[in-house]
Amino acid sequence: MTYIAPTREQLFVLDHVVGMAELRASERFSSAEADMVEAIVDGAGRFAEGEFAPLNTVGDREGVKLFEGQVRMPAGFGEAYRAYVDNGWGSIAAPADFGGQGMPVSLATVAQECLGSANMAFALCPMLTVGAIEALTHHGSADQQAQYLPHLSSGNWTGTMNLTEPQAGSDVGALRTMATPVGDGSFKIKGTKIFITFGDHDMTENIVHLVLARTPGAPAGTKGISLFLVPKYRLDADGKPGAFNDVRPASVEHKLGIHASPTCVLSFGDDDDCIGHLIGAEGAGMRAMFTMMNNARLNVGLQGVQVAERASQQALAYARDRVQSARAGSGSHTSVAIIEHPDVRRMLLRSRALTQAIRALVYYAFGQLDRAALGDTEAARRLELLTPLAKAYGTDIGTEVASLNVQVHGGMGFIEETGAAQHYRDIRIAAIYEGTNGIQAADLVGRKLGLEGGATVARLLHDIRADAGHEVHLLRLAELVSEVVAWMHSHDSVDDRLAGSYPLLTMLSVATAGWLMARQEHVATAMLNAGEGDPTFLKNKIAAARYYCDVIVPEACGLAVAARAGAGALYALSDEELAA
Amino acid sequence: MTYIAPTREQLFVLDHVVGMAELRASERFSSAEADMVEAIVDGAGRFAEGEFAPLNTVGDREGVKLFEGQVRMPAGFGEAYRAYVDNGWGSIAAPADFGGQGMPVSLATVAQECLGSANMAFALCPMLTVGAIEALTHHGSADQQAQYLPHLSSGNWTGTMNLTEPQAGSDVGALRTMATPVGDGSFKIKGTKIFITFGDHDMTENIVHLVLARTPGAPAGTKGISLFLVPKYRLDADGKPGAFNDVRPASVEHKLGIHASPTCVLSFGDDDDCIGHLIGAEGAGMRAMFTMMNNARLNVGLQGVQVAERASQQALAYARDRVQSARAGSGSHTSVAIIEHPDVRRMLLRSRALTQAIRALVYYAFGQLDRAALGDTEAARRLELLTPLAKAYGTDIGTEVASLNVQVHGGMGFIEETGAAQHYRDIRIAAIYEGTNGIQAADLVGRKLGLEGGATVARLLHDIRADAGHEVHLLRLAELVSEVVAWMHSHDSVDDRLAGSYPLLTMLSVATAGWLMARQEHVATAMLNAGEGDPTFLKNKIAAARYYCDVIVPEACGLAVAARAGAGALYALSDEELAA
Repeated sequence: MTYIAPTREQLFVLDHVVGMAELRASERFSSAEADMVEAIVDGAGRFAEGEFAPLNTVGDREGVKLFEGQVRMPAGFGEAYRAYVDNGWGSIAAPADFGGQGMPVSLATVAQECLGSANMAFALCPMLTVGAIEALTHHGSADQQAQYLPHLSSGNWTGTMNLTEPQAGSDVGALRTMATPVGDGSFKIKGTKIFITFGDHDMTENIVHLVLARTPGAPAGTKGISLFLVPKYRLDADGKPGAFNDVRPASVEHKLGIHASPTCVLSFGDDDDCIGHLIGAEGAGMRAMFTMMNNARLNVGLQGVQVAERASQQALAYARDRVQSARAGSGSHTSVAIIEHPDVRRMLLRSRALTQAIRALVYYAFGQLDRAALGDTEAARRLELLTPLAKAYGTDIGTEVASLNVQVHGGMGFIEETGAAQHYRDIRIAAIYEGTNGIQAADLVGRKLGLEGGATVARLLHDIRADAGHEVHLLRLAELVSEVVAWMHSHDSVDDRLAGSYPLLTMLSVATAGWLMARQEHVATAMLNAGEGDPTFLKNKIAAARYYCDVIVPEACGLAVAARAGAGALYALSDEELAA
Repeated sequence: MTYIAPTREQLFVLDHVVGMAELRASERFSSAEADMVEAIVDGAGRFAEGEFAPLNTVGDREGVKLFEGQVRMPAGFGEAYRAYVDNGWGSIAAPADFGGQGMPVSLATVAQECLGSANMAFALCPMLTVGAIEALTHHGSADQQAQYLPHLSSGNWTGTMNLTEPQAGSDVGALRTMATPVGDGSFKIKGTKIFITFGDHDMTENIVHLVLARTPGAPAGTKGISLFLVPKYRLDADGKPGAFNDVRPASVEHKLGIHASPTCVLSFGDDDDCIGHLIGAEGAGMRAMFTMMNNARLNVGLQGVQVAERASQQALAYARDRVQSARAGSGSHTSVAIIEHPDVRRMLLRSRALTQAIRALVYYAFGQLDRAALGDTEAARRLELLTPLAKAYGTDIGTEVASLNVQVHGGMGFIEETGAAQHYRDIRIAAIYEGTNGIQAADLVGRKLGLEGGATVARLLHDIRADAGHEVHLLRLAELVSEVVAWMHSHDSVDDRLAGSYPLLTMLSVATAGWLMARQEHVATAMLNAGEGDPTFLKNKIAAARYYCDVIVPEACGLAVAARAGAGALYALSDEELAA
């Protein structure tokens, strides 16, 4: 089953959810003209279809190998990555001062979606590089930017994020990797990091590791953490990769999915010869890392979109092709394609509605990032609020749609050759990394609800209500969310609030996505009435929006009880009693 | 992570949900005395822990191999299977006339649960054999019973079910395998079957295939299908396995999970020398197959219990062991075991509540099977109604709890060595085989709601309401289910009813399981007040019931809108428009 980029849908969302016309009205994004946007969206889709998609199965079966101290990528990946660099797909939103195209991030998001739908494991490499670019853009010195950004923007070098250690997962503050000053302004790095995505590979001539570490005497916890730039090969006098910098992949993990994405244990300074350069101030590492991480969270939410899109396409194609049983109640004895059967059709429409809904939510969040870059502080606050929703709800939906695709395939879905199982395996990590979805829910309740004293979430709920019109279920959900939020604001117990954090996250996500779907439906209806656009596409958009608002939104209303049930039931038994 | 059989919980459910005391009051089950039941439950748990559990990881990694025309099981499986036979674990509910112990099926269910929790792939072999025993018990001739049942009851031979062909999956009536009379009363079988679980292996000296095939001139569709007994080796004059019967495994599938369960393509009669024996009358094959299939559906629902139990145990153990971050709002900076964090605790309680709920539902259904065997026709009807619920809801929950276990493990959950991923992979097939969950929903709406003109479902809803007491959410859900059922009864459109079938199935399942949980809570509370039983166990039971009734039940209320939305939204677009 091949991948076909949903170009028309992506352009519609850029126009009517992100608001590309408003973005290009600014000087900064004036080059994002309609023709240019269309060419980029179209080109990215064709590139992903042609270069990344054919390697998805190969990557899964062959996996990565650690051989003679170096991670080896599966056959064909090096060449495809080279084509990615040569075509400039990595530089869409990279800073224009350093060789990038300076386009809106929401536009680069389309390219990232296509690459990840085509090959989720492979697309993690560019995704991590974007994080490194952002960290250096915001926190690097002028020298660091000049030395590294052009190579990262082009994709000639790739980037990594090094946070996790065995005892320091969600609790980053517990990390132990040390950075000791050498005297010349640089540091010697020593320590072991785990779960490092694309921590090593053989596709580029250098890899730029961004590493969280402690300096001697630094305070405990997150305040004592600094961020360091640690290249795999040190730069020589000409700024080219030279001497090996004592960073080694100690092993690669054997994982449920994304087999073509090397997840490395990285060992820094085994020979006491690993040099790192401080990014920003000492002790400011977590702030810099959050710059990367927040956008990375949106990008992980986008992985939900990627796999949901791919899985939806595969399910639809199979359901049209597979003939089985006559249609019940039809009076006919002739077998039909299973797309005719109501419950199969339910799964297909559900998949499509969920996929479009999370695309709208994630793209909208990226659009707020672009608006924030233009100085829109309200957009900046909304982005903060939406980030945990996009990450957690996006990945939950990615997992659900991948599972629906397996189900539509029946017995064939369980056979690895079909490919449906790979999507189901691949996407399962997305609800875990970049902060588990539980951490996202805690972030929502612990930090984001309180933004501007609650005004940020109140504004969003106001906007949803204002546009909801006659959408009774959406209005009801917005009402329930408001009640839960008010309950959260008035409850001092952290336990009580956290106990309801996950149900609230889902409810608010569905309300927001439902709002964006309803808005798109209005646009589509108006266009249809005016005789504009492709009527089939517009009718599909309306059908997906209706399904979302009429089925998914009422489901989410069922979570309201749990959202404000408090923590009493959770702690009614002691740990020992629970385990007895 | 080892498996510990939940013996106390299983005995509690047998006593207070199945009603073992009532069963043993009958002559037929009088040998199921309390001591005997306890010994069997306890012994089955210890056996599963000691013999089957240690092979779970081995089986997953090594898988099965087809070598020189014979499926080879992973190391250790042959010995463990021999121990299973020697200990008599296969014969608990097998007919006493043929070497079985004649105990209630609900008691054998406990043993099957333990085996499957320990090793889901392995336990499929006994599970299929039970199906063959049932088919022969109900439909076989006296000769067939005498020749085959003792060996199947002991487990010395194993059984298979052969329905599926490439073009005949859910639509069994489309099968093409032929059975041609030889003249001596036997038939020559020719055809290819796919997805045959334990279709071949090297653990026993014979395998008894039950094969659906057509006789020459038989009518099209299911009416022309007959059931045949096809041994791998024909029986000689002494009733011992003799000449090879021309049945060959052509290949074994490469699957997402249950790697130690050989899923075979079986080729019958390549050399025109495969002899089969008709079971029952010609054309009565589907009826006989449904005897096997209905109980197999309960057993597949039980697989949901098996994996949910195992996954819940693993999640709890990890959450107690893994230390990460201080508890939010506690004022302390000391890291705690993650079981302390509210959202982790939510996942653990949810897992436990769901696991106990589906155990109650599935055991209760098996209890109706035992009552039906005693001549209770109301129980027989209720069993029919509950079968699709136990199968579909049981497996949906198995999948959800396996996923929660992965999530509780964080990044480690995605690493295969942890073992959480295996459960997630293994259980995914259960929502598909023995009739996809969509087929179960169609069965509920198409056949089961109409049993006794609707009286069967009305009686169940009446019982739920009568016991619900002050359970406001349960009463509300029962009310909503009644409304949906009334809507279904009054709607002629098959499409409309099928469109809402899956949401209704979930709602009715949750209402029934919630009822059984609430009933257990009442018993536990009374025992606690009376100073009977283990207070920690009883408090756990109450906590799980409360979580189910206060969180899971309200969630299900959110499905009511979708259940009676009708099919309009599903068919608003044509197939071509959907795919455009």
